[in-house]
Amino acid sequence: MKYVIGTDYGTLSGRCVLVDVNTGEEVAESVFNYPHAVMDECLPNGGDKLPSNYALQHPQDYLDVLKATIPDVLRKANVSADDVVGFGLDFTACTLLPVDEDGYPLCMRDEYKDNKHAYVKLWKHHAAQPDADEINELAARRGEAWLPIYGGKISCEWALPKILQVLREAPEVYHDTYRFTEAADWLSFMLTGEETHSAVFAGYKGLWNAETGYPSNDFMTALDSRLDGIVGTKLSTNILGMDKIAGHINEKGAELTGLKVGTPVALPMIDAHAAMPALNITDDGDLMLIVGTSACHILNSGDIKNVEGICGYVKDGVIPGLYTYEAGQAGVGDIFDWFVKNCVPASYTEEAEEKGMNVHKLLREKASKLEVGESGLLALDWWNGNRSVLVNSDLTGMVLGMTLQTKPEEIYRALIEATAYGLKVIVDQYEDSGITINSICAAGGIAQKDEMMMQIYADVLNRDIRIAGSTQAGALGSAIYASVAAGVYKDVRTAAGKLSKPDVKVYKPIKENVKAYKLLYREYKVLHDYFGKENKVMERLGK
Amino acid sequence: MKYVIGTDYGTLSGRCVLVDVNTGEEVAESVFNYPHAVMDECLPNGGDKLPSNYALQHPQDYLDVLKATIPDVLRKANVSADDVVGFGLDFTACTLLPVDEDGYPLCMRDEYKDNKHAYVKLWKHHAAQPDADEINELAARRGEAWLPIYGGKISCEWALPKILQVLREAPEVYHDTYRFTEAADWLSFMLTGEETHSAVFAGYKGLWNAETGYPSNDFMTALDSRLDGIVGTKLSTNILGMDKIAGHINEKGAELTGLKVGTPVALPMIDAHAAMPALNITDDGDLMLIVGTSACHILNSGDIKNVEGICGYVKDGVIPGLYTYEAGQAGVGDIFDWFVKNCVPASYTEEAEEKGMNVHKLLREKASKLEVGESGLLALDWWNGNRSVLVNSDLTGMVLGMTLQTKPEEIYRALIEATAYGLKVIVDQYEDSGITINSICAAGGIAQKDEMMMQIYADVLNRDIRIAGSTQAGALGSAIYASVAAGVYKDVRTAAGKLSKPDVKVYKPIKENVKAYKLLYREYKVLHDYFGKENKVMERLGK
Repeated sequence: MKYVIGTDYGTLSGRCVLVDVNTGEEVAESVFNYPHAVMDECLPNGGDKLPSNYALQHPQDYLDVLKATIPDVLRKANVSADDVVGFGLDFTACTLLPVDEDGYPLCMRDEYKDNKHAYVKLWKHHAAQPDADEINELAARRGEAWLPIYGGKISCEWALPKILQVLREAPEVYHDTYRFTEAADWLSFMLTGEETHSAVFAGYKGLWNAETGYPSNDFMTALDSRLDGIVGTKLSTNILGMDKIAGHINEKGAELTGLKVGTPVALPMIDAHAAMPALNITDDGDLMLIVGTSACHILNSGDIKNVEGICGYVKDGVIPGLYTYEAGQAGVGDIFDWFVKNCVPASYTEEAEEKGMNVHKLLREKASKLEVGESGLLALDWWNGNRSVLVNSDLTGMVLGMTLQTKPEEIYRALIEATAYGLKVIVDQYEDSGITINSICAAGGIAQKDEMMMQIYADVLNRDIRIAGSTQAGALGSAIYASVAAGVYKDVRTAAGKLSKPDVKVYKPIKENVKAYKLLYREYKVLHDYFGKENKVMERLGK
Repeated sequence: MKYVIGTDYGTLSGRCVLVDVNTGEEVAESVFNYPHAVMDECLPNGGDKLPSNYALQHPQDYLDVLKATIPDVLRKANVSADDVVGFGLDFTACTLLPVDEDGYPLCMRDEYKDNKHAYVKLWKHHAAQPDADEINELAARRGEAWLPIYGGKISCEWALPKILQVLREAPEVYHDTYRFTEAADWLSFMLTGEETHSAVFAGYKGLWNAETGYPSNDFMTALDSRLDGIVGTKLSTNILGMDKIAGHINEKGAELTGLKVGTPVALPMIDAHAAMPALNITDDGDLMLIVGTSACHILNSGDIKNVEGICGYVKDGVIPGLYTYEAGQAGVGDIFDWFVKNCVPASYTEEAEEKGMNVHKLLREKASKLEVGESGLLALDWWNGNRSVLVNSDLTGMVLGMTLQTKPEEIYRALIEATAYGLKVIVDQYEDSGITINSICAAGGIAQKDEMMMQIYADVLNRDIRIAGSTQAGALGSAIYASVAAGVYKDVRTAAGKLSKPDVKVYKPIKENVKAYKLLYREYKVLHDYFGKENKVMERLGK
């Protein structure tokens, strides 16, 4: 029997699955938590408190994932590396780091270990908002052709604002950077010794497209004269489409992972996109909803439309022949985790311990007993800014309706409901722009575990929500791309047909809840527009 | 040496002080927590969950306060009851109960012990809002002359809405009620055997005034025909001004308290008003701020103005010759307590335990290190509705500005700041109506203990805040009224001059904070008006 391995790099951990390349069976999995997690308070050696909105990571953690999990799945399944015919990985994006010519991360040099701008800027690093504002303003003024593709506004999470922040705040780091690279592409390099860049990351997060490339040097120098010549130097133009592979495991890669030299390595995918083949979401009008720390809404469509406030579309981005649109909610599970960490009293923690469940589960158990609208609470789900459709990372969270009787589970439920309303804004935006959504399939751990939340989503959207069969759609998707890289299947669609998991469940809207949520959503939408467009108080307070 | 005793009935406990009638020295104090506390979940015997916005109490708790604390202070100070020359008490208002002809509370009858409407409706019982709405609407339509005195709108906390709720929802209780009485007046009756009613309660909470009495029978019957004849029957017209006393301790009163038969008992005062003589706040333009579970803002003024949204004014209400205006914030300490009970994580509870401090103190310690505006948070302080100047108990709390980095102490500080902004709205409303405020003196436990909060108040108001010298201004004030009832002093002003405590501290505005808070207050005021007047979402959600 032959196997492929897929590794999914999330926000806090890497998750690896070993998959039977003929049946799709996930025969073993292994998870490794990043030792440095997300650095938002200080650097590894302490030092000054990081400014607000920072979210950094340490690249050594990514290598440690490979070192820990690949041998672990092989051992667990008692499979030899000889029988592993391909490897693939997916990663959060845009998660960017500066490296030297050998691919050595600047933050791992002694001279830069105390310089925050030498570290990985995680997708949710939001401190480059002023840079994004400046890029948006200049691009709009110049009528840059690429701007409408991204909904008329780019996010501070993307590559160019992050690079501009490095240039402005740490010119020495900018100067010594040979390449700004997505962490995903950097890992390919570390495994194969060949530097390649995946079109999916460049297309969605790097302002690149196959026809016209990156924004012009004219634009770059208008932004900052020091960006002169960045394209082709610090930004690689060696960008490969999904018909290519990244390379083959070399000596160093074999030493790191225990895989055999020569094992094919697929081009990395963005984590959310990797899930699509894993869930066999390949048709026109299929929306995939990935619910994790944040949420992605990826839509296959035959239509080209500019949808205001979405993150962009890429042709053949996931499925050959279709445009793949992406929208996002910058915070979902992250918000619930924040709540559990910061806002749940000791009495609840103790109750959860006594019942042998985690606090999330206890809160869900209590919250599921509430009627729709019973708490009188309403929240805006902007703890991590708003990615779609307002595209403003300076927006912040809001809850209203608290009384002296308000209980933690009521607020918890209001936060869940807020993410459902945020999703409805996006779905409505697609449809109002003329793109039809035929079906919605939800993936990710939350989608499988949280029945109350998925029922709320079905009720708020007044649509069926299918639940994907794989708990690790990202990792399985990476394994599917690995199977194509290995030459076992002729293309992703064929591989997906063979290896993807069937749905496990469908949530259907409950009529009376639909009615109640319709009224609540109307209130949400008024506040969404008020705080998103009319009263810029959140932005003013955040300064 | 001779002594007087003052007892202050708060929301959760009764507090008794024994005072040297010549020097004002508080020689002993004693606190008794109400065994039933506030019943907002269920009645003493369990049974159905109480509807939301209920806040009931058990009258036996009030008697138990007398039984426990009076002997306790005498014992602690080694003073004989023979040397106690007067007794006074103050109480929250409007805190109303139905009693029979003997003054026996209906809830203590077997037939009514499971009927929620037979219990004491605490001041913060907010379930009579529909009744208050109806009263306001009818009074406005009929142009009732008493309405402008109360700022054009009465609160659901007052007597008539509470009575109307009993009539509508439990007509059998209404029928069997001989008298609806303030808990304060009921205690006078229990101590003296004489039923009297204090003009201060009737004036501020009962829609009564010395010139025209209660609202007309014509109004009452237009409201509900079953209210026909209520004035003079279920509502007593035996209302005495502060130049009278309630009576003298009788046999039963002596048995209950250990005081001597014949000891004079002063007319009870509203808790907040009782504090004024204790703090020697007796001049035109003096504003007293009492900060406890809620806040009262009581202003002496020679001017008569109708101030929109204040709770009313009473001539000679506290100080002979001045009008005493009252405004209020329905929730202050209550909100912080809600937060500590519901929103502070176990890690903080543990840290507080390790440091041997309570959680409030820990939060204040952390919050005091924040710069003004650093958190980016802004809150509306309406957890318990808004008493002044919006007069709407259906309004609810709001917090905005949360990010994934937001910490509990930041929210805690935002709640404190919100109460400061709420106070500024009231101060501005007085002044915009042409009533000058010359000085502000703060009293109550929070004012003495919470330095950060008082500095924030000084900074937000851009005024000096004097801090009253007595920790128990209410109880001392009651003792001062007792000294007048005892005939030791000729009037309250004289007694206050002798027995009141000097200020302990003055908080002065800090220039840079004043500037920063000016901007934040502007944001608050916009949201105050938006949620208070324009977007009625809070009311719709609360239905």
